[in-house]
Amino acid sequence: MEAAEGVSSATPTDEMNGAGNLMDFLDEPFPDVGTYEDFHTIDWLREKSRDTDRHRKITSKSKESFWELIKSLLDAWSGWVVMLLIGLLSGTLAGVIDLAVDWMTDLKEGVCLTAFWYSHEQCCWTSNETTFDDRDKCPQWQKWAELMTGHAEGAGAYVLNYFLYVLWALLFSFLAVSLVRVFAPYACGSGIPEIKTILSGFIIRGYLGKWTLLIKTVTLVLAVSSGLSLGKEGPLVHVACCCGNLFCSLFSKYSKNEGKRREVLSAAAAAGVSVAFGAPIGGVLFSLEEVSYYFPLKTLWRSFFAALVAAFTLRAINPFGNSRLVLFYVEYHTPWYMAELVPFILLGVFGGLWGTLFIKANIAWCRRRKTTQLGKYPVLEVIAVTGITALLAFPNPYTRRSTSELISELFNDCGALESSQLCDYINNPNMSRPVDDIPDRPAGPGVYNALWQLALALVFKIVITIFTFGMKIPSGLFIPSMAVGAIAGRIVGIAVEQMAYHHHDWIIFKNWCRPGADCVTPGLYAMVGAAACLGGVTRMTVSLVVIMFELTGGLEYIVPLMAAAVTSKWVADAFGKEGIYESHIQLNGYPYLDVRDEFTHRTLATDVMRPRRNDPPLAVLTQDSTTVEDVETLIKDTDYNGFPVVVSRESERLIGFVQRRDLTLAIKTARQKQDGVVSSSVVYFTEDAPQLPASNPQPLKLRRILNLSPFTVTDHTPMETVVDIFRKLGLRQCLVTRSGRLLGIITKKDVLRHMAQMMNQDPESIMFN
Amino acid sequence: MEAAEGVSSATPTDEMNGAGNLMDFLDEPFPDVGTYEDFHTIDWLREKSRDTDRHRKITSKSKESFWELIKSLLDAWSGWVVMLLIGLLSGTLAGVIDLAVDWMTDLKEGVCLTAFWYSHEQCCWTSNETTFDDRDKCPQWQKWAELMTGHAEGAGAYVLNYFLYVLWALLFSFLAVSLVRVFAPYACGSGIPEIKTILSGFIIRGYLGKWTLLIKTVTLVLAVSSGLSLGKEGPLVHVACCCGNLFCSLFSKYSKNEGKRREVLSAAAAAGVSVAFGAPIGGVLFSLEEVSYYFPLKTLWRSFFAALVAAFTLRAINPFGNSRLVLFYVEYHTPWYMAELVPFILLGVFGGLWGTLFIKANIAWCRRRKTTQLGKYPVLEVIAVTGITALLAFPNPYTRRSTSELISELFNDCGALESSQLCDYINNPNMSRPVDDIPDRPAGPGVYNALWQLALALVFKIVITIFTFGMKIPSGLFIPSMAVGAIAGRIVGIAVEQMAYHHHDWIIFKNWCRPGADCVTPGLYAMVGAAACLGGVTRMTVSLVVIMFELTGGLEYIVPLMAAAVTSKWVADAFGKEGIYESHIQLNGYPYLDVRDEFTHRTLATDVMRPRRNDPPLAVLTQDSTTVEDVETLIKDTDYNGFPVVVSRESERLIGFVQRRDLTLAIKTARQKQDGVVSSSVVYFTEDAPQLPASNPQPLKLRRILNLSPFTVTDHTPMETVVDIFRKLGLRQCLVTRSGRLLGIITKKDVLRHMAQMMNQDPESIMFN
Repeated sequence: MEAAEGVSSATPTDEMNGAGNLMDFLDEPFPDVGTYEDFHTIDWLREKSRDTDRHRKITSKSKESFWELIKSLLDAWSGWVVMLLIGLLSGTLAGVIDLAVDWMTDLKEGVCLTAFWYSHEQCCWTSNETTFDDRDKCPQWQKWAELMTGHAEGAGAYVLNYFLYVLWALLFSFLAVSLVRVFAPYACGSGIPEIKTILSGFIIRGYLGKWTLLIKTVTLVLAVSSGLSLGKEGPLVHVACCCGNLFCSLFSKYSKNEGKRREVLSAAAAAGVSVAFGAPIGGVLFSLEEVSYYFPLKTLWRSFFAALVAAFTLRAINPFGNSRLVLFYVEYHTPWYMAELVPFILLGVFGGLWGTLFIKANIAWCRRRKTTQLGKYPVLEVIAVTGITALLAFPNPYTRRSTSELISELFNDCGALESSQLCDYINNPNMSRPVDDIPDRPAGPGVYNALWQLALALVFKIVITIFTFGMKIPSGLFIPSMAVGAIAGRIVGIAVEQMAYHHHDWIIFKNWCRPGADCVTPGLYAMVGAAACLGGVTRMTVSLVVIMFELTGGLEYIVPLMAAAVTSKWVADAFGKEGIYESHIQLNGYPYLDVRDEFTHRTLATDVMRPRRNDPPLAVLTQDSTTVEDVETLIKDTDYNGFPVVVSRESERLIGFVQRRDLTLAIKTARQKQDGVVSSSVVYFTEDAPQLPASNPQPLKLRRILNLSPFTVTDHTPMETVVDIFRKLGLRQCLVTRSGRLLGIITKKDVLRHMAQMMNQDPESIMFN
Repeated sequence: MEAAEGVSSATPTDEMNGAGNLMDFLDEPFPDVGTYEDFHTIDWLREKSRDTDRHRKITSKSKESFWELIKSLLDAWSGWVVMLLIGLLSGTLAGVIDLAVDWMTDLKEGVCLTAFWYSHEQCCWTSNETTFDDRDKCPQWQKWAELMTGHAEGAGAYVLNYFLYVLWALLFSFLAVSLVRVFAPYACGSGIPEIKTILSGFIIRGYLGKWTLLIKTVTLVLAVSSGLSLGKEGPLVHVACCCGNLFCSLFSKYSKNEGKRREVLSAAAAAGVSVAFGAPIGGVLFSLEEVSYYFPLKTLWRSFFAALVAAFTLRAINPFGNSRLVLFYVEYHTPWYMAELVPFILLGVFGGLWGTLFIKANIAWCRRRKTTQLGKYPVLEVIAVTGITALLAFPNPYTRRSTSELISELFNDCGALESSQLCDYINNPNMSRPVDDIPDRPAGPGVYNALWQLALALVFKIVITIFTFGMKIPSGLFIPSMAVGAIAGRIVGIAVEQMAYHHHDWIIFKNWCRPGADCVTPGLYAMVGAAACLGGVTRMTVSLVVIMFELTGGLEYIVPLMAAAVTSKWVADAFGKEGIYESHIQLNGYPYLDVRDEFTHRTLATDVMRPRRNDPPLAVLTQDSTTVEDVETLIKDTDYNGFPVVVSRESERLIGFVQRRDLTLAIKTARQKQDGVVSSSVVYFTEDAPQLPASNPQPLKLRRILNLSPFTVTDHTPMETVVDIFRKLGLRQCLVTRSGRLLGIITKKDVLRHMAQMMNQDPESIMFN
């Protein structure tokens, strides 16, 4: 696989070249000791202790010479440098992606004659002939039909435009899926489930590699431009994490230590969300709440820095042309009223139901894809879904445009100058008011028309998103979810507004909505709906509200947003605790120990540990009576990741734990380099090997690779404590003892299996957390 | 001590009345088992597991009847109810405190004739004779001299006003210190160091009690009104935590579980900061970054809710009369320029230096107070400091008014209608511009006058705050720190502004500052300075920037704020890692394990554990050969909090750990209630006591109080891992074994002592973290 160079610290060549100093101060004689294999879990405690060793070494050296002092200072600052670089690169990439998407989305409809690389908006900006009334029309921008046939209107032009729209969409999506297939299979999907798993300590080599970065950036543009029902937010997080991984490789502090690397990746995730929405604080909280596993305070501060740098870089590029940082800038003029909480909470219920429906349907479809023939034709699948999307999307103006433009329009309050169909209210010529303060008015035919189209768009988005998310192209979920919510919210908002206008004598409206007053803001309903739907799908809470708060910039609307987010989370949680990302993690079987799952069962460590009652006894090594051959047989016959070492098989007193990988490497190296080590050599884990007669084969001393402080719990320890320990300390395995005797072992996978088992037995017990 | 009823879960009466059900389902036969003594550390793992037991019990019961289902739902919702109540009460208290402080601060200068309970501002608002030009003057508001002698002006009036100002200040502070001394000694200080310690798992009974709540609220008003150099922010956090503790006692879920209680207190701390500044997100981040120890995601969400409710309650009370949530609302009209980063970073350096100076001087003074005669006369000390403060503060208009008004004025940009001395710029009659856009102008005599007064105020504030913080009255540090920074910042800001005006041809100003342009905002410098000084003292980072961001509401100024905050933290950290709160924790010797201290030494568990080499052997119990008398002797002769139980003294195989408190209670209860238990009875920790001949005294079975899953590490475990485990799992103690044999014990205090020892040995090694 070409993309396999991302997590490069452990490739042999790399170790040979630059890792001399690492080996020195870890005092380890074999290369590769202390690294991990692909699809294995890291040991957080060991990584942390290795970093402390490194740090100690540098600190003590720094007193020796001025040069070493400089080096130690550089080392101390490297974290900030990495953050700066991540911020700059991910901000730049986000800007480039935004510009490219803008241009290519418009390319499906037409082209700018003055300069073909201009998007519709840019094209008409530069034109002098644009009038204020009709900002979207200028002679420089021509639809394809007009350019080809000279006729801008008529059935023929419509059909030709329709045809070219579908064709471009198919071309873009075909390119996207082909690039993913050929160059970087890991570039597909949203990436957040995998990043969560990686951050929790799993190794997926190449997932954050350079190829993935490049291909994901390019295909993200293609996928979004093709008009599929997907967003760029999740993939941007993936792209930012790839940037983080890229810059990690510049500093051995991060590239050689999987734990430290994950601190950088957490910060990169924050930068990703920061540029996706222009919400740096929301990005940090998203990383903290949703993505990260180990998030020390130092990382919080650095994440914030990276998120800010990224946001400012994006603003400097200014892809939206409005000097605004945020994706959907809104400003409302009227406050909300208590009675409006009822529709807001209803929108929350809708969001929760949509979240449940989406997760269940999408997981069922993805499982089908995994298990049936369907999964064998990813390119065809993408082509088919794109074709259907484009065919259905073109006739409806609300689905034809890009989803983020749609959301933006739905969020916006109708001003006096708005030319949108949604703002086609009947004007009362008797009223004269300041421009910004538009009172409630009866809806005109345009609004009713728009309502129908929006309702159709809602059904379309709901159905098509279920089939789109999970295809083999980069696809984010934030934008489609928000679109569903925004459409539903706007419809509800207009309904409430018209009800308040026509029935202002009803008791509920009487107090706050006189005729001629500006009392209902349909745009706010759209925003609340968007938050509710996004919350239902992802189960974000604080970060969701903060992102929305950063979009509007006003504390005023936090209560509606929170009411909707809480309702949506509660409703969705009632049907199943897991958000879409956790569901996909489970679907893919990644070993992810969710911080939020509470384990409340009465089982004990003894119920979970292996060996089980009828299993063969635990595979252990003794400290001074195992031969090299025994060890090799044990390694060959079993596939355990490590073996406990005991004093003797009789006493079963535990002295340490040795990793399979280290053992294999040590024996291999010893056989090659150390004379006299043969199959019958005895392996010693004791401090001193006894003086043996010369006739005996030379002993092999392996105390160096023995972990003398393995983690132990007693067999009576409640599993909830064990789960807590695994989670908080990031263990790979834990040994079980009773009165000092080794009884068994519990690995992370055993814990996960047990948790899944208990969950299925008694799904009700988790409902009341 | 009257205040000792706050943490009431463990008082015997309470246990007798309502704790029957707790005993039942914990299956524990003696009351008080599982509670803690005052000034002891809780065991987080045990608290968590007790809560799960309780939860499991309720869940299984909920299937039995409808009533139980309702009860279980109520239990599940009680967390949200507590949050709502905390938000409402702390918001209300904050509002009342604000109103009372306003009134009493003005009372030092004069009184409102129409209604004596009106503050100066309220008095002149209601007056019809207030003109727009001179909003501060109205006939209804009279200074004391005017009221008494009829003369508003002149030396006599000045002296009388001066005299009464000092008198009122002395009266307020005398009342405050007396109330604290007599009714609630715990109400003094800022409270944040103690709350940090409590949240990390320490028990200080009464610290969050009802009396403390009441007295702290009252004395806070008095202390702030007395004009001392202190703020209300820290004490408001304490007040909010008292509210949290109060509402905990309504629900057994929280009152009976010290771990769950601390989750509520973390959220209450967020609510406290939320109302102190009107910054709910900043409050949550402050709780997360600065105060809390164990902060699961569930708590994050609830804290956010509590912080919002509190902020909205405060806004409903509207104490500042401007419907703004925030304490210092500012709006600037001009952006900042890159070159301005230089003064901003200089302000950061100043903030760091001030932080270092303040911490060192204040700790030295507090240590002096603790160790010398000074500490014996707290009332006299407060009186003396108040007298000096009032005498020196009155002549200078910038120190006479309340500190928050001062900060507010310093933060504000000069508008066209501003009547303040600070805005006395020379007008250029040739220029006509919109009202809000004031170009840079030469400073008038008022500004130079103000600069002198500000410089004097700066020195005064710096010196007096050192002596004020730590006295026996409620005293926060945020406002004085911010005042120091705001004064310094405003001075720098005016200097830069005048330099830019007079030397606009200099190369640095050329590009962005033409004459007649509005290019430097001195108010922004004040804000940056305030952030820098606050950061230097508290070492807050993200929460500081977010609070400041919420004050202005604009992302624009985050970069200046961040630059200053980072610089200030780095400068201050170079002189010592600890912020003021950690320093006070250390000064008071609280057992607090800081999450941020990194332990990077090479010591092992064996170096820290007790018994040391020449100590007597570890006090252990055996599982089946200790008599009641032996146990009682052991309890009498030692003061350990618990004892390991081993199979036999020879094998030293560990089977469990028993708490001293549980053991004492168990034996006492057994002696009273269980016939045949005498001094020679054998205590059994095994599963079954053997059948003894009838002549032997009846055995005492104590397996129920034995913790069968004590935490163990091997003697080779690096201390950094041990520290990590103590921190993350919140342990009280940990047993040390080697190959299954019990060697010793490490308690939280041993860990802290060792960390302090290593820190002093090698203070340099922590500089590069």
